[in-house]
Amino acid sequence: MVAPEEDRYFSPEPTQRQVAHRLYERVKDLALVCPHGHVDPRLLATSHYEWGTPVDLLIVPDHYIFRMFYAQGIALESLGIPRKNGEPVEKDHRKIWQTVCDHWYLFRGTPTSLWLREELHSTFGIEEKMNAANAQGIYDAIAEKLQQPEFQPRSLFERFRIEVLATTDTASSALEEHQRIRDSGWTGRVIPTMRPDAVVNIQSDYAEQIQQLSSISGINVIDYHSYIRALEQRRIFFKEMGATATDHAALTAYTEHLSEHEADTIFQRALKGNADQADARRFTGHMLIEMARMSVEDGLVMQLHVGSFRDHNPQLLADFGRDMGADIPTASEFTRNLKPLLDRFGRERDLTMILFNLDETTYSRELAPLAGHYPALRLGPPWWFFDSILGMRRYLDAVGETAGIYNLAGFNDDTRAYPSIPARHDLWRRVSADWLAGLVVHTIIDEDDADEMIIDLAYRLAKQSYKLGA
Amino acid sequence: MVAPEEDRYFSPEPTQRQVAHRLYERVKDLALVCPHGHVDPRLLATSHYEWGTPVDLLIVPDHYIFRMFYAQGIALESLGIPRKNGEPVEKDHRKIWQTVCDHWYLFRGTPTSLWLREELHSTFGIEEKMNAANAQGIYDAIAEKLQQPEFQPRSLFERFRIEVLATTDTASSALEEHQRIRDSGWTGRVIPTMRPDAVVNIQSDYAEQIQQLSSISGINVIDYHSYIRALEQRRIFFKEMGATATDHAALTAYTEHLSEHEADTIFQRALKGNADQADARRFTGHMLIEMARMSVEDGLVMQLHVGSFRDHNPQLLADFGRDMGADIPTASEFTRNLKPLLDRFGRERDLTMILFNLDETTYSRELAPLAGHYPALRLGPPWWFFDSILGMRRYLDAVGETAGIYNLAGFNDDTRAYPSIPARHDLWRRVSADWLAGLVVHTIIDEDDADEMIIDLAYRLAKQSYKLGA
Amino acid sequence: MVAPEEDRYFSPEPTQRQVAHRLYERVKDLALVCPHGHVDPRLLATSHYEWGTPVDLLIVPDHYIFRMFYAQGIALESLGIPRKNGEPVEKDHRKIWQTVCDHWYLFRGTPTSLWLREELHSTFGIEEKMNAANAQGIYDAIAEKLQQPEFQPRSLFERFRIEVLATTDTASSALEEHQRIRDSGWTGRVIPTMRPDAVVNIQSDYAEQIQQLSSISGINVIDYHSYIRALEQRRIFFKEMGATATDHAALTAYTEHLSEHEADTIFQRALKGNADQADARRFTGHMLIEMARMSVEDGLVMQLHVGSFRDHNPQLLADFGRDMGADIPTASEFTRNLKPLLDRFGRERDLTMILFNLDETTYSRELAPLAGHYPALRLGPPWWFFDSILGMRRYLDAVGETAGIYNLAGFNDDTRAYPSIPARHDLWRRVSADWLAGLVVHTIIDEDDADEMIIDLAYRLAKQSYKLGA
Repeated sequence: MVAPEEDRYFSPEPTQRQVAHRLYERVKDLALVCPHGHVDPRLLATSHYEWGTPVDLLIVPDHYIFRMFYAQGIALESLGIPRKNGEPVEKDHRKIWQTVCDHWYLFRGTPTSLWLREELHSTFGIEEKMNAANAQGIYDAIAEKLQQPEFQPRSLFERFRIEVLATTDTASSALEEHQRIRDSGWTGRVIPTMRPDAVVNIQSDYAEQIQQLSSISGINVIDYHSYIRALEQRRIFFKEMGATATDHAALTAYTEHLSEHEADTIFQRALKGNADQADARRFTGHMLIEMARMSVEDGLVMQLHVGSFRDHNPQLLADFGRDMGADIPTASEFTRNLKPLLDRFGRERDLTMILFNLDETTYSRELAPLAGHYPALRLGPPWWFFDSILGMRRYLDAVGETAGIYNLAGFNDDTRAYPSIPARHDLWRRVSADWLAGLVVHTIIDEDDADEMIIDLAYRLAKQSYKLGA
Repeated sequence: MVAPEEDRYFSPEPTQRQVAHRLYERVKDLALVCPHGHVDPRLLATSHYEWGTPVDLLIVPDHYIFRMFYAQGIALESLGIPRKNGEPVEKDHRKIWQTVCDHWYLFRGTPTSLWLREELHSTFGIEEKMNAANAQGIYDAIAEKLQQPEFQPRSLFERFRIEVLATTDTASSALEEHQRIRDSGWTGRVIPTMRPDAVVNIQSDYAEQIQQLSSISGINVIDYHSYIRALEQRRIFFKEMGATATDHAALTAYTEHLSEHEADTIFQRALKGNADQADARRFTGHMLIEMARMSVEDGLVMQLHVGSFRDHNPQLLADFGRDMGADIPTASEFTRNLKPLLDRFGRERDLTMILFNLDETTYSRELAPLAGHYPALRLGPPWWFFDSILGMRRYLDAVGETAGIYNLAGFNDDTRAYPSIPARHDLWRRVSADWLAGLVVHTIIDEDDADEMIIDLAYRLAKQSYKLGA
Repeated sequence: MVAPEEDRYFSPEPTQRQVAHRLYERVKDLALVCPHGHVDPRLLATSHYEWGTPVDLLIVPDHYIFRMFYAQGIALESLGIPRKNGEPVEKDHRKIWQTVCDHWYLFRGTPTSLWLREELHSTFGIEEKMNAANAQGIYDAIAEKLQQPEFQPRSLFERFRIEVLATTDTASSALEEHQRIRDSGWTGRVIPTMRPDAVVNIQSDYAEQIQQLSSISGINVIDYHSYIRALEQRRIFFKEMGATATDHAALTAYTEHLSEHEADTIFQRALKGNADQADARRFTGHMLIEMARMSVEDGLVMQLHVGSFRDHNPQLLADFGRDMGADIPTASEFTRNLKPLLDRFGRERDLTMILFNLDETTYSRELAPLAGHYPALRLGPPWWFFDSILGMRRYLDAVGETAGIYNLAGFNDDTRAYPSIPARHDLWRRVSADWLAGLVVHTIIDEDDADEMIIDLAYRLAKQSYKLGA
């Protein structure tokens, strides 16, 4: 055994490992702050949730997993991924699980393999490595656990020590599940996050999206002015339901301020289905500024995720829909793109805008210098493909020297896989501990500093950045 | 001695070094699979090849070496590099060798210094470090060896344990040397690779290139239609001669599908010398898609090398010609550029398209996500300037987490320096062993996984990706 | 204690640390060559310089420091940074110092914290870490030292073992302070560097800048021709005053050769305030080529710093002026941008052009291949945000394999903070020693090579690249 299990992911260098071990001990049992993610609130809206099979739990919803099989020529149908046209796909979940285990070697060295190993181990008590021989045994073990009351989502919420869990919800959501959680008397803190992409990013179904916004807000959205009022109304509603943040996805960080007249002209074209790509780009760019303005006024933290070219594989989109592992990153630019927004609101001390992206080259070149200057900016943790051991190390190395750690927003798990939450936080805590230990053994910081910084990275920065209470 | 010679390039951390040592032992004697390179097939077409002097062997053909001297103000003429106009250059090879050894310190820390050290040591039995004092002695030692039968290319082929060696050949090549190898009865597996750049990338000599294609194919190429037929004919011929792959070089990965009419219009302009840069870009972009189509049909693996700005120094091109160490990388983009090709053929499970480039930022941002999704894609090993210890480590670190290793194409030496082949594979095997050992000591993979992965990286992935047999 | 103080910043791996220690010992007491920086020559023009308070010395002039406070919502006014309109700012320097120490934790892990720690320790003899409790005591200790004759700039010059210190001066400077240094009989070597940005980069005050150039040169600058003559005159003057280099800042590395007529047309428009952004870009691009031409003729080394988007925060510019920590990097490109210049002068062996930039992705992709080919090019050390432990390591890792170290320009401290000079050189020397030790323990170089390379990196390369004498 090259390292004790308890010291996994730490440097093999004995001094560094020892310091990392000590730092990790300080935070391993701290509560989990989960300010950004995609857990379905239905899990927690009921006192009894039906998990389905291990495949329903672990494979079908996880595009990190099935995209790798797809890349190796294994059809999504054979993994039980539903087709949009309702054509039959594999229904035998034991057979699917066998296929997964037969090819699990594909994930060697990937964060997916670590998350699932941790999840099976710490949540389900399974110590074995998945392989062709033990596939059915592991299936049985998981299936058996899923029936037990301790594996109900609310029980896990406590066992995981989740302090707060934010979901992500469309602007037109009535937040019914959140209301059910409140009404149920259960005391877990589950809060919504308003993600208005569907009404901000002009796409083919825009008129329908605006219609929904009209309905839910009770404001007759007929022009840019009423549109803005409706959005403001939704923000108030989300705040009342506990939200502390909004979230925005865009292909780029492009921002541009439009006059109200220009904005309305594009908006009207969009309602009629006549807006082109340039319109869409400008409108999103304008609305990011407008959303920052609203955040200055109502205090909601503004998250911005940029750089994903969604649905890159058109046939897959047609056959299976969105979020099928076919979203591919693109190069990003912030220095020029974000300037119009920052010119207006970058100096606001009460605005918190958290930036995420998929182009690591921006970390040291643009993001750390921007966050190390503008009061309004914080950097989100490494996102998506970079939510990994090396992704985290490269991020901390790239931003730490210029921005320090106090312009970062801590960690968020960003997952729709509820039972993987502790594994994801644990990975961040371990990597952070090892990274700080590296600074200690290189005499860059002392152990007193490290003692504070590990708590900041593991817990405080997320809580504070997302205004989740003292 | 800080590390035993046998553990060179491994981590100094004792546990990691020990694991790396063990992993390396598993593959150090495996046969060499060389699916992409630039060895001149003439070397192997004859039972007796005349090597010339050590300078002919090691300096004159190696732009990695003479570009460094040039950068330091040492004229290429003084290194015996022939001028295009036939003007005299240094002919005294002992004097050239002395110049090389006098300035060999310039290569401290470079892969060139490691390759040559290994080559001199393991192939020529020379243990000394090259310097001003021992220059002539080393010259003598090499020259003496080159006369021995054991140093004949075919003998080295066996001593190097080369399982298969692919050359790179123009589409209009008659593959005469390959035919001579076949006819000779020698059993070494040397196969051609079709590289149709000269007839695909429109340049000033395009009409002449097409004329050659006409002649060799026996198809009268007068329009786009006959052009495509001629290319298909050449692919059949290359396959008959053992080829399993084609290779394509382009400044960018831009692809665009043209109608047959558009393609023909540009082709006709090109024949008349009237095509402009935009024509050339679109035609190459279209032909990459067309070549992928042919690969789907005939099964040839398609390699794509992008990002080199060739012949950056126009005076050097005029004086000495191409491949003089003046090719400079440029930024690359794949997510958008490759989409038209992938829209058509990315989902094909039987297509294998292997991507190479010189912009490391694309590894984690675009290439790993693309290869981790599309069945048709594999990532080639780090190319050219990145065929180095750190280049390999950065590559494996950047792509391993997202693509895993099973969407990679293993290693290829890409060299025209035949005697350096074992040194290059050995470097890859050592770096791979050390990289996997790093994963083991960080408890990311276990030793059983590493035992398989080292064989995959050193041998199996290359063989399988290039369809070189079971 | 995880590492002895004397081995700070070295690898924790014992063998590497030991080698690093030995290499560092070879250079730690070598004289400091400071070929590029922003020290005010007034400090050294007088035998008695009045430092002011510790805040005057360490906080007010250092945008690395106050931008971090600003990013965390601490107003610049409260740090005593003067407003352009003369409105009052905090004047109580003890209070400012307390604010700084109260929030010093913000710098944990940053190079600023290391520089200041080293500076306080080695120059001022202060061992304590700055914090809220000891703020006033440290203030007293510094203030007391600043009164002592040993802390006068000329005394520090000797104590720091500065061999040569280059300042940076506008083309229209009369270099009066340099003349005073010469006239004083003091023998420290302080030399100017001509930075003609204000007369090369067309901005709103261009006519005024040209007027100053006319006055100082005694050449009536009325057109492009007289403008060039005036610049040539200034270069002669700077050379006479000891300069060995010029320095040029540009947003990009764009170069383009204009005909004299085109250049004059733009120049005339600029004088009248009618030049647009495209004019400015082309004119700068042309003048970089023209400056290279002059460097070929007069032998002055040409430095080029590109990639900083200056004054990104317009309100801050309006309120406080330039150099307020609001300069943000942008992506850079060299392969295409620099080609017109290199086509003309890249092959010149007597030209030395030193490139700096803020986009690390160019290191391995463009800069190392360019410097590893063109005789005229050398790479400057990591600049600004990258003048840090990891910035240096990434730089050496990225360029060392392709360019070797002999196409690098060694180190320069680039600082306006005179007392921090030794700390900055020491950091480079330590990181270089540790980096070379890494090559040694990986058996990439041997210790004999490392023994030479550490002196090259620490001393020789800077001296030689900037033509500062044998």
